[in-house]
Amino acid sequence: MTYIEQYIEENKDRFLKELFGLIQIPSVSSIAENKSDMLKAAEYWKKLLLEAGADRAEVYESDGNPVTYGEKIIDPTKPTVLIYGHMDVMPVDPINLWTSPPFEPEIRDGKIWGRGAEDNKGQSFMHAKAFELMVRTHTLPCNVKFMIEGEEEIGSPNLGKWCEQHKEMLKADIILVSDTSMIARDMPSITTGLRGLAYWQVEVTGPNRDLHSGLYGGAVANPINVLAKLIAQMTDEKGKITIPGFYDDVLDISAEERALLAQAPFNLETYKKSIAVDEVSGEEGFSTTERTGIRPSFDVCGIWGGYMGEGAKTVMPSKAFAKISTRLVPNQDHEKIAVLFKEHFESIAPKSVKVEVTSLHGGQAYGCPITVPAYQAAEKAYLDTYGKRPVPVRSGGSIPIISTFEKVLGIKSILMGFGLDSDAIHSPNENFPLEQFYNGIRTIPLFYKYFAEIK
Amino acid sequence: MTYIEQYIEENKDRFLKELFGLIQIPSVSSIAENKSDMLKAAEYWKKLLLEAGADRAEVYESDGNPVTYGEKIIDPTKPTVLIYGHMDVMPVDPINLWTSPPFEPEIRDGKIWGRGAEDNKGQSFMHAKAFELMVRTHTLPCNVKFMIEGEEEIGSPNLGKWCEQHKEMLKADIILVSDTSMIARDMPSITTGLRGLAYWQVEVTGPNRDLHSGLYGGAVANPINVLAKLIAQMTDEKGKITIPGFYDDVLDISAEERALLAQAPFNLETYKKSIAVDEVSGEEGFSTTERTGIRPSFDVCGIWGGYMGEGAKTVMPSKAFAKISTRLVPNQDHEKIAVLFKEHFESIAPKSVKVEVTSLHGGQAYGCPITVPAYQAAEKAYLDTYGKRPVPVRSGGSIPIISTFEKVLGIKSILMGFGLDSDAIHSPNENFPLEQFYNGIRTIPLFYKYFAEIK
Repeated sequence: MTYIEQYIEENKDRFLKELFGLIQIPSVSSIAENKSDMLKAAEYWKKLLLEAGADRAEVYESDGNPVTYGEKIIDPTKPTVLIYGHMDVMPVDPINLWTSPPFEPEIRDGKIWGRGAEDNKGQSFMHAKAFELMVRTHTLPCNVKFMIEGEEEIGSPNLGKWCEQHKEMLKADIILVSDTSMIARDMPSITTGLRGLAYWQVEVTGPNRDLHSGLYGGAVANPINVLAKLIAQMTDEKGKITIPGFYDDVLDISAEERALLAQAPFNLETYKKSIAVDEVSGEEGFSTTERTGIRPSFDVCGIWGGYMGEGAKTVMPSKAFAKISTRLVPNQDHEKIAVLFKEHFESIAPKSVKVEVTSLHGGQAYGCPITVPAYQAAEKAYLDTYGKRPVPVRSGGSIPIISTFEKVLGIKSILMGFGLDSDAIHSPNENFPLEQFYNGIRTIPLFYKYFAEIK
Repeated sequence: MTYIEQYIEENKDRFLKELFGLIQIPSVSSIAENKSDMLKAAEYWKKLLLEAGADRAEVYESDGNPVTYGEKIIDPTKPTVLIYGHMDVMPVDPINLWTSPPFEPEIRDGKIWGRGAEDNKGQSFMHAKAFELMVRTHTLPCNVKFMIEGEEEIGSPNLGKWCEQHKEMLKADIILVSDTSMIARDMPSITTGLRGLAYWQVEVTGPNRDLHSGLYGGAVANPINVLAKLIAQMTDEKGKITIPGFYDDVLDISAEERALLAQAPFNLETYKKSIAVDEVSGEEGFSTTERTGIRPSFDVCGIWGGYMGEGAKTVMPSKAFAKISTRLVPNQDHEKIAVLFKEHFESIAPKSVKVEVTSLHGGQAYGCPITVPAYQAAEKAYLDTYGKRPVPVRSGGSIPIISTFEKVLGIKSILMGFGLDSDAIHSPNENFPLEQFYNGIRTIPLFYKYFAEIK
């Protein structure tokens, strides 16, 4: 039994007890009345870090919820790992679908159940315990910093500024994050790409009031008809986005890299069955994983206008609205895309309506080359634990703060997640398998070991 | 002073008092708790007809709200006029926009103000008083029947069956209806055409649940994107509806008839200004009045799906919905069109989604040749009152019960309206100018006179 196994074996019950204490704090960042719980969670994290062996740990104010920062500097000349995690969680509605109460964690069927059990209390807690393990077994090979924020689930609106303000303190060689999933429990993977995002609201105004669809229908532009036509024009029959200049900054992916990405196991039939569609649909010339991993996409996230109640009301509405988003790939700039879309959408609108496009949100894509030392360290660490070399994966999702870290702090992030698709994060009955939880605590010290060696 | 003027002059205050009594009954047919008011209004009408001189008047049950029927048969060999009107009114929301309470009628600025002041209490009441006038002045030249229903504002769902059941009783030569408007106070008009209607709800289903637009966006068909494309395909760049077979039964309108219809004064700039649009929009090759009067139209009356709240939620919804309607012209069959649309819309949907089209509502178009005797009688009556020959007008709206009358009873209707655009029917501050109200009572006896002569 290695020192790692032994330490885990001797302390596993305490680990769970401490994690349960964290989950019991209802730190839902999107609900104002849970504000005081954010401070409780931050103080809880401070205690965790100090007890684990940090030189110092503090609860810092930000323009929003507090950030807990802690560090242990063993030797300023050695490399430094900065751990990022978040203490806030998603709301629990619909509460009646939970088998056990979300803030009363329990073990059932080999899994930890509760809101935050995985995302991100469970996953970030593994780092606290891996850190403790290394300190107590005198195996910590480099400096460690922790930055645990309280606003990830609401888009980290204040952390970028907080990083700016504490740039010096946060200096590190790599940021290590466990806030993603593995392909499967026997198939480790490292997320090397995240898509960016540009998001707008569009408003199409026809007549100045709702009109009788009989008296005016056919003679006045109907804003819903027009909105449908405008949206329809945003993509062509090959699934390409038609906004002029949209693909200008998209990098070509080499055949070699596409082959590597294609190694990730993927079963189209299982995929279709899991979401109950008869056929997938997307850009011609790319596979399903490529369509979400390496290509941008165009989605209407919401649409509304006119009569939405029961039965048949004959009305030509004055206005129609849509929430429109594009997912972007590395090297596309979300601010540039925001302007391109706005200009194009407004310019193709007929003069019979007024169109207003408002940019609501944006985030840069992120890409991490598989050649950086930290990636190789993570690869070796997973290989030790799982007996399999992890697969690099480009996720279709966005974690905008990761590209902010790169921009503000100039540090790459390694997304070393231990979640599984079945964890039901953001949903009722969130859970985290004990096996993955302990595997995380096993694997993280190996990352430090290999990273200190390679670096 | 003619006998008509004299009678009106002597009785005008009583007329208003009696009309006010009718308006004071809040007979809103779409609100269940106003059910007892429907019966009150029906009894009020019975009393009105009996006092005016009907041989008999009864409140009849129907499968819905009661119908008041009354008649005076002066000579079975003489022609019979059947008056149709409705005692029910629209809801009054938003109530705070009313200057005076909707069910407390008052005279202000030469107008009667209140819900139903015009539509249709005011206009149908004119017929009761014109009938009274003819009885009292011994000038009634033919038989009269009244059919006043209580469900017009909810689409007359039960009147067709009621007519079937009382076919014999309702026998008449013409149905006379005042439930439409004149072009302007100095420009009488007779509505000779009404558009029909076919109305559907469509439901597009993509994945079996809402998905993360990042993780799935670009690889799975988004039901809103698809719905927009389907709607966009329903009309072409010339404003023509693309449903195969849609125009098959549309009758060509002769150049002569188009010229006649074009006599109705219409100012495009005023029209655009009134609804605050920079440009009108519609089928190529037709004028604005033709687009609503003699051509069918395609309008999305409502659309919804995905996230409609504040801010940016990134979601690929499972479903998207729309309420879609077409207005039809005489000779198009709404049931045939309902099937044509459903088949076409479902057939062009991609296999990546499921599309369900449900027919919600339909009604036939109606057309009345300007050559029928009753039209000519109405024309002469208006000419006497207004000093101008009325213009035939094809309305873009639908009054489905009018085509039901033709189908069930085999009787044409003359739409002899005295409303004005400024009456704000269905809106707050509904009103009816006293001048129009008394002109109606003046004109209707003339119609009877000319109709009895011509017939």
